Amino acid sequence: MRRDLGNPRLLRVMNERTLLGRLHDHGPASRAELAKVTGLSKPTVSAALAGLEEDGLVHLVGEVSGRPGPVTSLYDMNARSAYVAGVDIGRDWIRVAVADLRGSFVGRRDGRNLARSTADLALQVRELALAAAADAEVYWPQVTCVVVGSPGVYDPAGGRLDFAPNLPGADLVARLRAALELDPVIENDINLATVGEHDYGMGKGKANFALVSIGTGVGMGIVVNGELYVGARGAAGEVSYLPVAEDVGSDREAFEHGSTESVASAPGVVRAARLAGLRMDTAKDIFAAAARGDVVAHGVVEAEGRRIGGLIVTVAAILDPEIIVLTGGVGRNLELLGKAIERRIGELGPLRPQVVASTLGDSGVLLGAVARARHRAWDLIFEARRG
Amino acid sequence: MRRDLGNPRLLRVMNERTLLGRLHDHGPASRAELAKVTGLSKPTVSAALAGLEEDGLVHLVGEVSGRPGPVTSLYDMNARSAYVAGVDIGRDWIRVAVADLRGSFVGRRDGRNLARSTADLALQVRELALAAAADAEVYWPQVTCVVVGSPGVYDPAGGRLDFAPNLPGADLVARLRAALELDPVIENDINLATVGEHDYGMGKGKANFALVSIGTGVGMGIVVNGELYVGARGAAGEVSYLPVAEDVGSDREAFEHGSTESVASAPGVVRAARLAGLRMDTAKDIFAAAARGDVVAHGVVEAEGRRIGGLIVTVAAILDPEIIVLTGGVGRNLELLGKAIERRIGELGPLRPQVVASTLGDSGVLLGAVARARHRAWDLIFEARRG
Repeated sequence: MRRDLGNPRLLRVMNERTLLGRLHDHGPASRAELAKVTGLSKPTVSAALAGLEEDGLVHLVGEVSGRPGPVTSLYDMNARSAYVAGVDIGRDWIRVAVADLRGSFVGRRDGRNLARSTADLALQVRELALAAAADAEVYWPQVTCVVVGSPGVYDPAGGRLDFAPNLPGADLVARLRAALELDPVIENDINLATVGEHDYGMGKGKANFALVSIGTGVGMGIVVNGELYVGARGAAGEVSYLPVAEDVGSDREAFEHGSTESVASAPGVVRAARLAGLRMDTAKDIFAAAARGDVVAHGVVEAEGRRIGGLIVTVAAILDPEIIVLTGGVGRNLELLGKAIERRIGELGPLRPQVVASTLGDSGVLLGAVARARHRAWDLIFEARRG
Repeated sequence: MRRDLGNPRLLRVMNERTLLGRLHDHGPASRAELAKVTGLSKPTVSAALAGLEEDGLVHLVGEVSGRPGPVTSLYDMNARSAYVAGVDIGRDWIRVAVADLRGSFVGRRDGRNLARSTADLALQVRELALAAAADAEVYWPQVTCVVVGSPGVYDPAGGRLDFAPNLPGADLVARLRAALELDPVIENDINLATVGEHDYGMGKGKANFALVSIGTGVGMGIVVNGELYVGARGAAGEVSYLPVAEDVGSDREAFEHGSTESVASAPGVVRAARLAGLRMDTAKDIFAAAARGDVVAHGVVEAEGRRIGGLIVTVAAILDPEIIVLTGGVGRNLELLGKAIERRIGELGPLRPQVVASTLGDSGVLLGAVARARHRAWDLIFEARRG
């Protein structure tokens, strides 16, 4: 620390970051206000603002007059001095958002995932990304960082996605790099949804919470002490592999996809419905039928709620999170699942975890990807300034 | 931070702490060495050492001569300037250790837990503590901090131990305070065993690991980013309440003690052995019989290993720890349980958690309690010096 403080350039960049952070969090301010809240001297503030303004990171947004004394200039962060992008590669949909440095989406495009190969996938991502940027009149090279969410555990050493049996994986990173002309950061989609929930959703302000996603797959993200926790090998929250009470025997699919995933995911719900005699192809249809009062569909939803209740008790017994946020195509239906979940929790013991539904709809992963990309863009900006 | 650095007294205490920390970690050193490794000036080191020496925290331990130049004085931390105590209140045993400021045990007493009331318990702890201190010729008032490990989740607000159905709880803290003439810090025993494992055992140097204890009860402790993680309400790792595949139905005991605890704990093993026709009263006897080649006992141990394997996969799927340390009267028998655990892990999917047995024997909780007490004693010393 002492050595760092002895370096005037580093000190200047630290001051710049403090000021830009303040403008980012609280909006326009005068030099005098900035000096007051940061504890920096007025000449230091002026010098740092001048440097930031010169590089387009800060701009003058107005003046306060009509008070005694000279006119006061108001400065703000120039959120459009650079852009970032977030990508959500799901099994059914690919979603891309372009955002400014404050994280506000300026363009977004969603498209059905039609890719049959990694090459297809990278091209489809490129098309959506360029279209999202064009919508916002952003020239793609202005995008400085891209974070991509995908199912599976990304292994940076091998450039591979592990545990993602539903997606083409091996050379995805290289293909995306070529297609986007940027070095993409690949992260597990559920981890990104957890970051999105922490920055924008029900996890805001929570130091410890878990997000459980039940949709095409089953996954969990964990925040501990305000930070995403990914485990020793990036596989924390791989709850699809939790053992379940129901006998899935030596079922090969259960082994590969995980036994919890094969019974609790949307395809698991569809299988359960078929066994109960319902001819419905999607979990969405089954939940809609249950909502309409269909007794058989209601029973299927009830059984699914009980499974989720067991999963929630498992998570609570290990992590004791402040809240458990449910998301995903199935998990979001808390109004239909809630009663069964609660009853099952009550049967299993005295733990009473607080369960809430995500309010971010299908944007959770995208919001998390943009949040990560934005943090990375900030780091890159100040790394560059430090020289 | 800037304001802190402006306070010369605080700065002096920070320097003292840096020096004492260095002596604690690396042993005797000269003023010149201390100046070199800490980056402090020689006059600053001399002044801080003088202050620490005056209060008995540092002492001269020798001189290096025979080299050109003046004789060099060697200083060390005076580990016996104060003492701490750790207490492990188990269902069967009460253990007390008195240790110096380096954490070395100077006295230890273990006694059967014969208490039938909280008052009995506090008196028995007092007797053992005074005896352990006397063994080391330590006068009890020289002990400045005591940390007590106990089953259950300690609720500081209510002064109560929650989820500890096997122990008298409500007024334990007040009774211990009176009996020990010290404000005791009560912590969950498994959390302390985890701290002990992190400081002295298999968890040393691990940023992320879990300790699973299977004995009279079942519990788990978690280290995340090098720190004990206790969850939002201190109930993280309450794995006794994990749902299990085996049907424990509406069994009242399973509800209160947790379904995993009722099947996997030592009493659960004894019950399983009885059902299998064995007339043995302790898990220890059953493991001994299995080791001798008793086929029925072997089957009981095998089934227990499979249950533990399921528990381990559950923990791995959620936390992905670097290692899972098994401890407790049952859990420690990895040589007998290992094969069945491994087989069950293999059946349940692709996760391959690394499982090791604790090497701390019955001292894990005590080591953790002493480690905590020592850290607290350090904090108190420097709080007092800051005034």
